[in-house]
Amino acid sequence: MVKKARIGILGASGYTGAELVRLGLRHPQFELAVLTADRKAGQAMADVFPQFAPFSLPKLVSVDGLDWRAQALDLVFCALPHATTQLVVSDLLDAAPATRVVDLSADFRLSDPAAYEQWYGHPHQALALQSEAVYGLTEIYRKEVKAARLVANPGCYTSAAELPLIPLLKRKAIEPDAIIIDAKSGMTGAGRSAKEATLFSEVSEGFNAYGVAHHRHMAELDQEFSKAAGQDVIATFTPHLLPINRGILATIYVKLRKDKTARDLRTILAEQYDGEPFVHMLRYGDMPHTRHVRGSNMVMIGVVADRRDGQAIIVSVLDNLVKGASGQAIQNANLMLGFPETAGLEQIALFP
Amino acid sequence: MVKKARIGILGASGYTGAELVRLGLRHPQFELAVLTADRKAGQAMADVFPQFAPFSLPKLVSVDGLDWRAQALDLVFCALPHATTQLVVSDLLDAAPATRVVDLSADFRLSDPAAYEQWYGHPHQALALQSEAVYGLTEIYRKEVKAARLVANPGCYTSAAELPLIPLLKRKAIEPDAIIIDAKSGMTGAGRSAKEATLFSEVSEGFNAYGVAHHRHMAELDQEFSKAAGQDVIATFTPHLLPINRGILATIYVKLRKDKTARDLRTILAEQYDGEPFVHMLRYGDMPHTRHVRGSNMVMIGVVADRRDGQAIIVSVLDNLVKGASGQAIQNANLMLGFPETAGLEQIALFP
Amino acid sequence: MVKKARIGILGASGYTGAELVRLGLRHPQFELAVLTADRKAGQAMADVFPQFAPFSLPKLVSVDGLDWRAQALDLVFCALPHATTQLVVSDLLDAAPATRVVDLSADFRLSDPAAYEQWYGHPHQALALQSEAVYGLTEIYRKEVKAARLVANPGCYTSAAELPLIPLLKRKAIEPDAIIIDAKSGMTGAGRSAKEATLFSEVSEGFNAYGVAHHRHMAELDQEFSKAAGQDVIATFTPHLLPINRGILATIYVKLRKDKTARDLRTILAEQYDGEPFVHMLRYGDMPHTRHVRGSNMVMIGVVADRRDGQAIIVSVLDNLVKGASGQAIQNANLMLGFPETAGLEQIALFP
Amino acid sequence: MVKKARIGILGASGYTGAELVRLGLRHPQFELAVLTADRKAGQAMADVFPQFAPFSLPKLVSVDGLDWRAQALDLVFCALPHATTQLVVSDLLDAAPATRVVDLSADFRLSDPAAYEQWYGHPHQALALQSEAVYGLTEIYRKEVKAARLVANPGCYTSAAELPLIPLLKRKAIEPDAIIIDAKSGMTGAGRSAKEATLFSEVSEGFNAYGVAHHRHMAELDQEFSKAAGQDVIATFTPHLLPINRGILATIYVKLRKDKTARDLRTILAEQYDGEPFVHMLRYGDMPHTRHVRGSNMVMIGVVADRRDGQAIIVSVLDNLVKGASGQAIQNANLMLGFPETAGLEQIALFP
Repeated sequence: MVKKARIGILGASGYTGAELVRLGLRHPQFELAVLTADRKAGQAMADVFPQFAPFSLPKLVSVDGLDWRAQALDLVFCALPHATTQLVVSDLLDAAPATRVVDLSADFRLSDPAAYEQWYGHPHQALALQSEAVYGLTEIYRKEVKAARLVANPGCYTSAAELPLIPLLKRKAIEPDAIIIDAKSGMTGAGRSAKEATLFSEVSEGFNAYGVAHHRHMAELDQEFSKAAGQDVIATFTPHLLPINRGILATIYVKLRKDKTARDLRTILAEQYDGEPFVHMLRYGDMPHTRHVRGSNMVMIGVVADRRDGQAIIVSVLDNLVKGASGQAIQNANLMLGFPETAGLEQIALFP
Repeated sequence: MVKKARIGILGASGYTGAELVRLGLRHPQFELAVLTADRKAGQAMADVFPQFAPFSLPKLVSVDGLDWRAQALDLVFCALPHATTQLVVSDLLDAAPATRVVDLSADFRLSDPAAYEQWYGHPHQALALQSEAVYGLTEIYRKEVKAARLVANPGCYTSAAELPLIPLLKRKAIEPDAIIIDAKSGMTGAGRSAKEATLFSEVSEGFNAYGVAHHRHMAELDQEFSKAAGQDVIATFTPHLLPINRGILATIYVKLRKDKTARDLRTILAEQYDGEPFVHMLRYGDMPHTRHVRGSNMVMIGVVADRRDGQAIIVSVLDNLVKGASGQAIQNANLMLGFPETAGLEQIALFP
Repeated sequence: MVKKARIGILGASGYTGAELVRLGLRHPQFELAVLTADRKAGQAMADVFPQFAPFSLPKLVSVDGLDWRAQALDLVFCALPHATTQLVVSDLLDAAPATRVVDLSADFRLSDPAAYEQWYGHPHQALALQSEAVYGLTEIYRKEVKAARLVANPGCYTSAAELPLIPLLKRKAIEPDAIIIDAKSGMTGAGRSAKEATLFSEVSEGFNAYGVAHHRHMAELDQEFSKAAGQDVIATFTPHLLPINRGILATIYVKLRKDKTARDLRTILAEQYDGEPFVHMLRYGDMPHTRHVRGSNMVMIGVVADRRDGQAIIVSVLDNLVKGASGQAIQNANLMLGFPETAGLEQIALFP
Repeated sequence: MVKKARIGILGASGYTGAELVRLGLRHPQFELAVLTADRKAGQAMADVFPQFAPFSLPKLVSVDGLDWRAQALDLVFCALPHATTQLVVSDLLDAAPATRVVDLSADFRLSDPAAYEQWYGHPHQALALQSEAVYGLTEIYRKEVKAARLVANPGCYTSAAELPLIPLLKRKAIEPDAIIIDAKSGMTGAGRSAKEATLFSEVSEGFNAYGVAHHRHMAELDQEFSKAAGQDVIATFTPHLLPINRGILATIYVKLRKDKTARDLRTILAEQYDGEPFVHMLRYGDMPHTRHVRGSNMVMIGVVADRRDGQAIIVSVLDNLVKGASGQAIQNANLMLGFPETAGLEQIALFP
């Protein structure tokens, strides 16, 4: 019989929490032992997300009263809001230092305390953990993730941009100072808290840009692109809101280095991601749709030359709740726990 | 090592065909050996449904050239249009009588040749098979399905109505002559052929009834309700089109038999479906949402008393492509092949 | 030059308020003099609804500080929440008794104080006004509306059901004790306040019933149907939420009186609504779509016989924000102010 | 009494045709005298677009049998497919040379016969008319439109890009060789013909780029941008499909000329469009939504500096069926017929 890992999910009443439960319930080696949701503590998960009514799950509890040592969790997924996360994870790892943590917030993504303070407006409260944390873009940092105790799961927008761009920057195939990322996200990225701007009637049948020129995911892009390029990189990044539930599409405009062609870019990416279970390179010139990755942990990437000489266009798609959040988190957890990397993540996209 | 069944899917380029592939690819005991699609023969499945690009699948072939005997398929899912189906299945079973067939069309659902001719406007072309076929609403006909060679998978609307109503009619809890089924379906039920009426711009941001008072699913309802009640039953049935991809919701108005209450109806259904893996009874008074079964093989049913004395309201939901078509078909196939009934069908609803 | 009426809109930051502004700005005889929105007082209307940025409008003010006498408004549209409305309207009419009021809340719809108390859980605070108020379903109460100082604009669901049913009850064409109204509404009916249940990701790609067997619009239906039938009428009414912004569709099941046919029902309605600018009877057997009335003040009604003898199906559609709320309110205002009934309401449905 | 112009609409059964009817029916000086629709000739407009059922309109006729001289139309809107248009307009103007024509196809947009042949794959069939035609972006070519007999209405994507960029190129505020236009369009832009790719179930809940690096609207952009800049300009242009009915949003990335700032760009545009009834400049840093122009003839434009030095981001929105097609066409027609430019176009956006 398979030995199962005891898993905790903090923030189970949000969308990324529910997605962890959806995938975790069918993971062959997960035992969902603890689910927290502060404002909904005491309720059944089925009261909060009725799709789970047919299944057996622990009751929602508050994160406050938890005895981490007694729970003896093998791994905790932390899907709490930014800023509170760093305090909770500190407490958890103080009490139960052997527990592994995959954090889905932004709290541990920036390794530079100064950058964190600049973008988030306050000093980091857990500097040692910030320095310990591994950035969890698995395809790029697989080795580090395997050895990590604390993994900072990347942002959804950033994953869509970094997977195609990091290898191209590393291989010096594109100019680092002329990257434009026009990104579009489904509404689940905005979370489940009730706001006028995310009401159905405000969103449906419309489209808009937001956070133009000052979105926090830029800090993550700066960090990873600069690291890959070996020099400071500042990319243009414009997020937009799509009237769909799931899906991110990034249309990326790049300037080719001399002697490089758009086909070269595709070749570099195809080599990089050959054998990767969750990254699929389309044929040269084909362009991906968000609907073809919906509900799955897959990323699809297309490359084509622009009609302007020396320019190429790259389009990547992923499901913001899966490869952009909870699926990516489980992929990391599988590595950290020594499970097969694809365990629990083999669902095929739900289309139509 | 698990022995796998060799599976054929006829009509793989339609939505129910694609759904059979989605679920079949992850079925632990299925080998997808043959995929047919006449107009797209020669293409890869990934050209027709790009979500399958990362996976290995046989090329699409025409059903015409197939040597059924040589293929030695254990089971064939037939997702072809009405009327052509009966000819194809006849040929198939003549050539390969040991192959089992689950037919997703309406061709074998009506056991009465006269009823078939009345509703479909022409005599049935395979009368022996029509009489052999078992109606595949698993929870009602499990025993017959297990022994069947040819199963007629029920319609999506009819499944949503029959699962709550057949037990109530059998137990004489409701009046058989006062049933009103107000049903609403997502657009995938209309299939993938290009028609003006199903274009995005014709459907989005709107709602309408159609086929009022003369929809073909009525014939199926008549047959099953009459059988359950032991007398002729004609129900009122009004289908509507929802601007969503997946989901059927049936709002059913029933008149209680003397001495029966709405709570009695819930009790009867809860007893009937106790232990069923794919039917979930909500608490009395709770009402189901289509979104909580999206992508899953689950049916959810709610019951409440109307404010008019002696009346009750029952609401049932299912995903028309899963429990309303391809999931139901796999559930039947599992029984016919001696596999666990839930194999390949354990995905949890994708919400949000 | 046209003499314009000075108009106030209370609650301009909600959807029905915005719709009054949209239509009112283009009304040839309206001067939008006062716009209130308590929580947004001090802001420009364009900050709250950016579509109005190109137009000149008064700043939003609080209803509290208003000097009704000094404002000398000819007519006030009151689009405030239930219960607060009755207090505001009392104050207004005390201070400025010559001002006319069209109230879009439910506060003055029920003429019976006991019924109000039963459905709303507290005694009415303005009994004299409650008895003065005229129920503003224009096509039924045109004469009374013309003479009224205070009009209670009907609910959106109730308008969709009452326009087809009141004439049939009056003419004794249908049985009053067997009416079933299965109603579906777009999301703008739920208003603009931020609630989890009306977030895009909770609503999109799904469908559900709500308030089954206990929705407050039932009280209005009881009142009007009983009045029309000359006896107590309790109808079955089930509301559902559609993932669209605008539109109500009511599928109505009725039992024909002896010697009546479904075609008779259509004839009665066609006679009743002959010459009405905002009610359009479809040909017998045709069924209306919500999209064909979107943004317009039109109601469309279809009638057909059910396949069960003695039963008929009626389907009506309207835009819940126009004929179901703000357009209906302007239609009443036009009569109260002596303007052409169609002034400002001549927009044709926006489809696609 | 107002003298009305006799108007013809060719291609009334398409979406732009229906939009011309919607707006034209309420135009104070239009008499809709002739409506053509070849495949639907003989039908009522209400059979094709039921929203027009309550209104009086001429029956649909075939364009083939029309006696242009006898019809004595003042102006014809031509909403026919590309390529057939040039033949129809030739015939029309031969027979009735005094009739004015606003053509909504691409046939007369390119003034250079070689460019036409290159992009459309065949020589132009009406070279004299091609050279006579005036490009109908009213705000830029108002004087020429007033005097024109034949106006080529611009494309929807191109209007969204040209209105912000032409003034900036003319004033040499931006570099002409570094323009990137990431454009997103609602589905009505794809027209009403039945295609698999535009079915609801293919489009809903998804997003994708298409025609990357080779869309025909590029030819129009090249022509107008080069003219404005006084040098050859080739812009990067990527169209995407939004799961909404109406709306185009263009996110435009530009490189500032030395000594220019993003605020300068806004100032130039604000000066250019000061007093224009259909172009609204947002405050610096604000970004427009498609929903705030839905159903209206308005364009809204926002400008902000990018965080990369020397770069700015401009976002423009319009309704592709109104300012992107039929509203723009009526605006041109008004000028050509000496009517007020805003006649029939004063509707305010329908939001929510």
